[in-house]
Amino acid sequence: MDVHNCIEKRRDTRHFTNETVPDTVIEKALNAAHFAPSVGLTEPWRFVIVKTEEKKKAIKKLFDIESLKAQSQINNEEKKELYQSLKLEAIMETPIGIAIFCDTSILDNFTLGTIGNNNTLEWSCACAIQNMWLSLTAQGFGAGWVSIINYKDFCKIFETPKTWKALGYMCIGKPATDYDGMPMLQKQAWATKSSTPYVKYI
Amino acid sequence: MDVHNCIEKRRDTRHFTNETVPDTVIEKALNAAHFAPSVGLTEPWRFVIVKTEEKKKAIKKLFDIESLKAQSQINNEEKKELYQSLKLEAIMETPIGIAIFCDTSILDNFTLGTIGNNNTLEWSCACAIQNMWLSLTAQGFGAGWVSIINYKDFCKIFETPKTWKALGYMCIGKPATDYDGMPMLQKQAWATKSSTPYVKYI
Repeated sequence: MDVHNCIEKRRDTRHFTNETVPDTVIEKALNAAHFAPSVGLTEPWRFVIVKTEEKKKAIKKLFDIESLKAQSQINNEEKKELYQSLKLEAIMETPIGIAIFCDTSILDNFTLGTIGNNNTLEWSCACAIQNMWLSLTAQGFGAGWVSIINYKDFCKIFETPKTWKALGYMCIGKPATDYDGMPMLQKQAWATKSSTPYVKYI
Repeated sequence: MDVHNCIEKRRDTRHFTNETVPDTVIEKALNAAHFAPSVGLTEPWRFVIVKTEEKKKAIKKLFDIESLKAQSQINNEEKKELYQSLKLEAIMETPIGIAIFCDTSILDNFTLGTIGNNNTLEWSCACAIQNMWLSLTAQGFGAGWVSIINYKDFCKIFETPKTWKALGYMCIGKPATDYDGMPMLQKQAWATKSSTPYVKYI
């Protein structure tokens, strides 16, 4: 698939069919992720593939707690109702999930490109996620990024080393809809995509 | 260009020809950036296009200061010499630079997907950068991400609002080399790209 076409077609998907995702699709997507730029060629991304019901349930529980907390912070009743109507994850119904972590242990030594801002490591991981997402899109699959979780508890589920920071959880499967070619949050009237980005020339 | 091919061809480029970059190329790349996923459809990315010698000089100065500081932290003499031989920016010789910022002002209200981690906003911007980079690659151009800067001073150069966080500066032009199809840091013997990413199945 043409790269610009793929970039425009990629969606944050929450509605999936019950089709499985072949391992070869995941492997290709992770290979694409691995071609992301990484600060100082550190390749700090760590992927944990989730297929078991038990782990999915644990993650779903974290989402439910945090989503309820988020909801309680909305003062506007109309907005609260709209929030309740949104589907913001597909943890249990997607065949595969990928938890993404950033390994910051490499910061023990001199790490090229991190002197100005350590977050450069996380940014590298985000670029890897975007590559993975585009690859899945090109292969006819989709993903939805779940970030409404307690990140510390999320790490506990996976018993990760202390140096690992979580970026979230991707629900992966076959999209049941393309939301008429617009972001799901726009389709569900939560927000509207602007036609152009903010650009300033100096 | 095919998306997987583009993902593999994208390089962190530091060596450019003196060819100009048409405005249409930049516009197309920024449009691709704008199609990135953004947490809660917040579109927090802000792009400032730099063409003036004066701004480039100010950014180059920040790089020089921080790079010297980074260098002084290397204890190993051999590694220090290698560091000195690396070309880590192309600020003055690239026709166009883009400073990328993340507008965190939207966090004043309830912002979907940020309750677990505010960094989700920065990750959205990193995804936008990756899209921009892929678009430039597909269009026959290239970019190099400069992160060896004092980020606070960088914001001062651009007199940005206090709510803006910088992600860095992209030097954009026509690549003079593809580093034999490997990361520049590998070509220059700083680090070696691993053949596969870290993946664990649970």
